[in-house]
Amino acid sequence: MCAKHHKMPGTAPGTLVAPKGALTPKAVHVIHYGQDSVAEADIASVEELARLRNGKGVVWVNVDGLGDVELLGKLGQLFDLHPLALEDVVSVHQRPKVDEYEDNLYLVVRMLHYEAELRTEQVSLFLGKDFVLTFQEDVGDCLDPIRERLRKEGGQLRRRGADYLMYAIVDAIIDHHFPVLERLGEQVEELEDEALERPSQRTMARVHQAKRELLSLRRSIWPLREAVNALLRTESPLISKNTRLYLRDCYDHTVRILDMVETHRELVGDLTDMYLSSMSNRMNQVMKVLTVIATIFMPLTFLAGVYGMNFRHLPEVEWRWGYLAFWLAIVIVTLLMLWLFRRKGWLGGGRGQ
Amino acid sequence: MCAKHHKMPGTAPGTLVAPKGALTPKAVHVIHYGQDSVAEADIASVEELARLRNGKGVVWVNVDGLGDVELLGKLGQLFDLHPLALEDVVSVHQRPKVDEYEDNLYLVVRMLHYEAELRTEQVSLFLGKDFVLTFQEDVGDCLDPIRERLRKEGGQLRRRGADYLMYAIVDAIIDHHFPVLERLGEQVEELEDEALERPSQRTMARVHQAKRELLSLRRSIWPLREAVNALLRTESPLISKNTRLYLRDCYDHTVRILDMVETHRELVGDLTDMYLSSMSNRMNQVMKVLTVIATIFMPLTFLAGVYGMNFRHLPEVEWRWGYLAFWLAIVIVTLLMLWLFRRKGWLGGGRGQ
Amino acid sequence: MCAKHHKMPGTAPGTLVAPKGALTPKAVHVIHYGQDSVAEADIASVEELARLRNGKGVVWVNVDGLGDVELLGKLGQLFDLHPLALEDVVSVHQRPKVDEYEDNLYLVVRMLHYEAELRTEQVSLFLGKDFVLTFQEDVGDCLDPIRERLRKEGGQLRRRGADYLMYAIVDAIIDHHFPVLERLGEQVEELEDEALERPSQRTMARVHQAKRELLSLRRSIWPLREAVNALLRTESPLISKNTRLYLRDCYDHTVRILDMVETHRELVGDLTDMYLSSMSNRMNQVMKVLTVIATIFMPLTFLAGVYGMNFRHLPEVEWRWGYLAFWLAIVIVTLLMLWLFRRKGWLGGGRGQ
Amino acid sequence: MCAKHHKMPGTAPGTLVAPKGALTPKAVHVIHYGQDSVAEADIASVEELARLRNGKGVVWVNVDGLGDVELLGKLGQLFDLHPLALEDVVSVHQRPKVDEYEDNLYLVVRMLHYEAELRTEQVSLFLGKDFVLTFQEDVGDCLDPIRERLRKEGGQLRRRGADYLMYAIVDAIIDHHFPVLERLGEQVEELEDEALERPSQRTMARVHQAKRELLSLRRSIWPLREAVNALLRTESPLISKNTRLYLRDCYDHTVRILDMVETHRELVGDLTDMYLSSMSNRMNQVMKVLTVIATIFMPLTFLAGVYGMNFRHLPEVEWRWGYLAFWLAIVIVTLLMLWLFRRKGWLGGGRGQ
Amino acid sequence: MCAKHHKMPGTAPGTLVAPKGALTPKAVHVIHYGQDSVAEADIASVEELARLRNGKGVVWVNVDGLGDVELLGKLGQLFDLHPLALEDVVSVHQRPKVDEYEDNLYLVVRMLHYEAELRTEQVSLFLGKDFVLTFQEDVGDCLDPIRERLRKEGGQLRRRGADYLMYAIVDAIIDHHFPVLERLGEQVEELEDEALERPSQRTMARVHQAKRELLSLRRSIWPLREAVNALLRTESPLISKNTRLYLRDCYDHTVRILDMVETHRELVGDLTDMYLSSMSNRMNQVMKVLTVIATIFMPLTFLAGVYGMNFRHLPEVEWRWGYLAFWLAIVIVTLLMLWLFRRKGWLGGGRGQ
Repeated sequence: MCAKHHKMPGTAPGTLVAPKGALTPKAVHVIHYGQDSVAEADIASVEELARLRNGKGVVWVNVDGLGDVELLGKLGQLFDLHPLALEDVVSVHQRPKVDEYEDNLYLVVRMLHYEAELRTEQVSLFLGKDFVLTFQEDVGDCLDPIRERLRKEGGQLRRRGADYLMYAIVDAIIDHHFPVLERLGEQVEELEDEALERPSQRTMARVHQAKRELLSLRRSIWPLREAVNALLRTESPLISKNTRLYLRDCYDHTVRILDMVETHRELVGDLTDMYLSSMSNRMNQVMKVLTVIATIFMPLTFLAGVYGMNFRHLPEVEWRWGYLAFWLAIVIVTLLMLWLFRRKGWLGGGRGQ
Repeated sequence: MCAKHHKMPGTAPGTLVAPKGALTPKAVHVIHYGQDSVAEADIASVEELARLRNGKGVVWVNVDGLGDVELLGKLGQLFDLHPLALEDVVSVHQRPKVDEYEDNLYLVVRMLHYEAELRTEQVSLFLGKDFVLTFQEDVGDCLDPIRERLRKEGGQLRRRGADYLMYAIVDAIIDHHFPVLERLGEQVEELEDEALERPSQRTMARVHQAKRELLSLRRSIWPLREAVNALLRTESPLISKNTRLYLRDCYDHTVRILDMVETHRELVGDLTDMYLSSMSNRMNQVMKVLTVIATIFMPLTFLAGVYGMNFRHLPEVEWRWGYLAFWLAIVIVTLLMLWLFRRKGWLGGGRGQ
Repeated sequence: MCAKHHKMPGTAPGTLVAPKGALTPKAVHVIHYGQDSVAEADIASVEELARLRNGKGVVWVNVDGLGDVELLGKLGQLFDLHPLALEDVVSVHQRPKVDEYEDNLYLVVRMLHYEAELRTEQVSLFLGKDFVLTFQEDVGDCLDPIRERLRKEGGQLRRRGADYLMYAIVDAIIDHHFPVLERLGEQVEELEDEALERPSQRTMARVHQAKRELLSLRRSIWPLREAVNALLRTESPLISKNTRLYLRDCYDHTVRILDMVETHRELVGDLTDMYLSSMSNRMNQVMKVLTVIATIFMPLTFLAGVYGMNFRHLPEVEWRWGYLAFWLAIVIVTLLMLWLFRRKGWLGGGRGQ
Repeated sequence: MCAKHHKMPGTAPGTLVAPKGALTPKAVHVIHYGQDSVAEADIASVEELARLRNGKGVVWVNVDGLGDVELLGKLGQLFDLHPLALEDVVSVHQRPKVDEYEDNLYLVVRMLHYEAELRTEQVSLFLGKDFVLTFQEDVGDCLDPIRERLRKEGGQLRRRGADYLMYAIVDAIIDHHFPVLERLGEQVEELEDEALERPSQRTMARVHQAKRELLSLRRSIWPLREAVNALLRTESPLISKNTRLYLRDCYDHTVRILDMVETHRELVGDLTDMYLSSMSNRMNQVMKVLTVIATIFMPLTFLAGVYGMNFRHLPEVEWRWGYLAFWLAIVIVTLLMLWLFRRKGWLGGGRGQ
Repeated sequence: MCAKHHKMPGTAPGTLVAPKGALTPKAVHVIHYGQDSVAEADIASVEELARLRNGKGVVWVNVDGLGDVELLGKLGQLFDLHPLALEDVVSVHQRPKVDEYEDNLYLVVRMLHYEAELRTEQVSLFLGKDFVLTFQEDVGDCLDPIRERLRKEGGQLRRRGADYLMYAIVDAIIDHHFPVLERLGEQVEELEDEALERPSQRTMARVHQAKRELLSLRRSIWPLREAVNALLRTESPLISKNTRLYLRDCYDHTVRILDMVETHRELVGDLTDMYLSSMSNRMNQVMKVLTVIATIFMPLTFLAGVYGMNFRHLPEVEWRWGYLAFWLAIVIVTLLMLWLFRRKGWLGGGRGQ
């Protein structure tokens, strides 16, 4: 599905190629904060950033759009990022992972978007001693509450280091999975009703779509769990003992998300069987109608055929009350059959038997 | 399914927010006991509790309802509970787990309720040197036999420490799974009969419901087993060697419960196939009736049609015994066909072939 | 399925309650043997046993029936058994397991019975330095060959210690699985034939029954394997190095049994598909008969209808050989259709296509 | 399936009982070889063998048939084999395994035979410092190329020790799996065509048979892989470092065989679905024929019925061209319907839609 | 499937036999490069190569075609390759693996080709201190970009050692999986549409083909991942620390490929259910048409039959407006039925209900 934007096999590693159709970032958003101060700016050149960074405190640099590889290269030089990590930033189909380099950590996570259908966006994080870099594919994210908390004085976020900021970002991205899973859960329940009550060809297409989305969620959450676990257990001095305690909480959330995805998957997996059983039920209904009609009218038609015969010596047709007797026989036979079918339960209205 | 009550992604960790629609506790139930004494009270303020706690012996504090976050905060301060643990108390969709903190243990288990359908309630336990705290979502639990045993003099429960009380509570909550599983087991057996004997659309809905419930049980029992195992293996000095022996028994029970859940799941998983095979069987019956009717009456109707033709030279209709011969032919053909069908086994009454 | 006889949640651990409907043992069977002597007795009181035990050699005490908890308590005191182990003896739905206590080993295995259907009986063994205790739910077991070997002089069983006796008992109980699995295997083969040759609603019920039995076997054999493995690897001085060699053989047998159970399970799992395909095949046959009949007689009936019309100017009916020509047409059309159907393979007798 | 020949539960271990219907070996085949010499003989008594063994070089003793337990016992004494290993030799349903004894290795592998259907034969190998013993159930094996290589001077086989001979035998038996798997693979491909092109009840029986065979193969290859791995990793001085390198190759082969078996199993597992879909397709064809016939002839028959009515005032029958107009109407209606069905794609010849 | 070209069971190991139908290589392609120089030649004899190799720098020897075992033998002697490794080179159904020998590494990978259908080609690599040997089954590979990079001055490839060349080759072969997986992904999407919109017997054959291809991909990628992991973790001095960093990137790619293959497999596994549900839907449509037709025309035909009877006293036929009344009744009944069917939703045009 999403193997589209890979580089040519055989090209040299470390070559930065912007992904096809990538957004060119308009500006680089920088928040520079310490316990007592916070500064926020949209800067245009990396040089400006270099000057800004000389001060104390933590810098959070956020880039929306991966279209400007030159900018990436300069940022890489300024913050001492490894070429292979930079290559991974622009290769937008990474699985969540943590790569440790000498003096920074590279982390890939995927942010969910759910408008018409589920979409995942790659977010790359670099964590250094006094900086956090985030690279997103597109404008728009779920990190505004964190920016708000940074702007307010006195919060934990302002007091603690870069590692806590990274935790806060990862936590926000992970917690953003819950509302998406809720919507998927509602959709699964709707599909359950649909499969049982009003199955149509569209149902199967929607069930398959739900399976695809859950599969793609699962594909990103399993490695996410591993990545958070790796953060928890890394011996890197970049992450303080206290932040680890918070990451444990984060880990619990990924486990719960995985749990929910697996549950949804099991329930959706069951829907095909429910659909098939509904169809089989309906077919049964149709066949019963056909059989009831045929069983009633075939004998009657035969009887009408008999008295349409031209035998010279056919006594009944001569009788005065023959025609009346014929109708009487018809009515009796029909009622008998209907009674029989009712006993067999083939005429029970709605959806019974 | 149950992702409903999560906090906004991006809010600061450690913030206590009461779950939506949470019950505000009327009072805090306290049992204060030692080998020779037991005191029981419904107290209104945490200050009262602080006073009570100065004495020797073990205190069991039980709170029914998570609506009063201020109360939680005060209890947290009194008993030195970690903010992240308190946050987990009010986040009511935790999986069973054990978190070790410096001088207490935090344990989440889920209590089953089975009235109309299966419901699980989160029970949070804190174990300290001389206290056990339990937080429940709702009034009503399965711990009354333990309260009774505490009130009676001379029992083990009174002689031993807080860890044994915690074991007793966990054991009661785990053993409470058995009657629920029994009811589920009976329901599965009913569904088996229904799927084989009288399958209807409703059967599939009930099968799916049973699957959901078993899935949700399984989701809470797997981590429960892990949690009990963690308690068994923890090096925390809070749990004595003797209590560990009893926890091993507890662990055996979770394994057995898991075993039963998995068995039920396998049996329920089989029900869809049984349902489909029943439906297919019934369809076969219906089709046989239709075919028998059509095979008998189509030739007869044709024959009646033949002698209803107006050919001038149609010798049979002139015969004196033509009409009688016609009926004789009809009877012979019909009997022949019926004999054929019986040999094919298509007329075997009940549910055979 | 078998969660019936659990004690009330919340009761104190170590309380001995006889399982509902448990058999009260008539006597305690004791075999006391050494290399040169063997004595066998049905004794009535535990005191008698205490006296008997003072001699050298090994004592094998067997109790059939768990109805007399007082007897159990006394035996527990005499042989120094742990209360939790005794509680497990009367809790008759244990999974096979080994629990090590200070100076004895407690082992649970399940003995198979297969009369009308599969039934498992809990057998509890205690192994001490010079005794083996066995507790069975019912009279009747597969251990008579061992008793015979004990009575005969010169066998290995008489020369070796209590651990070898325990091995012999466990080995007999495990080997007793083979004939039961053979019968199950034959049953599976019968079901295969039935599903392919003469599928009926009963087949599905029997397939489901076979699945239940294999599931319950599997549930008892997996932990049995673990238990035998635990015996193999235990550091307990109660089991000699030589006996371990024999237990390795025992372990190989449990692996083979597990293998057979899994094989049977796979084959039985396949039966539903075979059943459904047979049903689908049969439905196809029925539909073909219906279609053949309808395709032949519908055109004929139409033709007969045509010549039954009352058009004034209907030349054919006036012809001298009209009626003969009609029958000729009928015969030709019918033969043509039959030839067509035969070519399509719809008339192939037995069960082909 | 193959639990038939087990000994009575409860009999003493180490008792040698010939398997039911076992072949009594006619002679013992011995090859005695060194770098420069080779001697081959069919000997009748074990004493003769004892004499022969005094020389240098390696002895390969092969026994075809397990009917003579006395012979086994004598060989056991001569080569110092453990009674439990000898018991395993005559218990012919062993899984492949390696058991290490003090100064020899006992190895069980299974040789495949595929004439009418798949059959496996137990081959037991004992490896000592200067001997290899092989016990087969039947005459006829795949080891003749090895015998040939032994007879020829200058080969590696002659230069190296007993462990290399054992490797060569095991390698030959393992490589003999490939042609069998090839035949099974061809069979699976045939079944694929059959299930898609000409499904019949027989197909399902053959699919089930293929599953059985693959299951039984898998059952013997998984432990075979473990056994070869155990040989690779054993610390026994009986196997030289150089031979281990060759055994690694052997191990690669078992992995590949396992791979092929699993692939075949997946493909065969798919066949039932293909069969069911073919059947469903065919049913659809049949139903379409029926519906087309009924939809065309029912209105026509009705029309013929109308003009067969005896209404006094039925104007059409009086018309001069009434009969012709009737046929015209018939033809038009029929063509219209056929055009409609063709548009719906219900008349598309072969196997389309 | 691909067990075809194995050697006779029982032949001596290390014997080189060209695979059946193997291409005889026309020439041996040699690239000899260092930081400042590069030389490229098609040489005919191994002696020439021996001379060439005396210089400094790295030699990459590539052989297309395995038909010339003599050439292989000579290369083996020149580069000191182990006979078992050479045997594996000509045994063309190896799974990807790494074998370490004393002073070289042997690596098997499989290169994908996807023209009409998926085909894999075995590529054997030997890595020594200053050489890389590659053996391919056929002419034509995906390594031309690497040759280009070697020819250009100043690239990393020229500066680094043989291990980096090996990495570059393995990386190119692995990255070549992506376009193939993309094509497979597109095919899966097409099949999804086909199964839902226009299912035919051909669909099932294509679904099965897709399963086969994905299975065969999976079979080669799992061991490939293990092999790359083994390269990453090997302690061989042949692979420098820096190259390992690049191999980690390689490993990430194999994990992603595996992920994609598993995703495709899950989606394809779902297609059979979609196909069956589409078929069931269609059958339902057909049955509804039949039932509608039968339910409308059977009563009408019966009515026409009634007025075709010859009863002397059949009042309606005498009426002046009898025939008109008859048609009126027909029209009313038909409309009523159509209205009924529409309400039941059986006449809803396209593919609804």
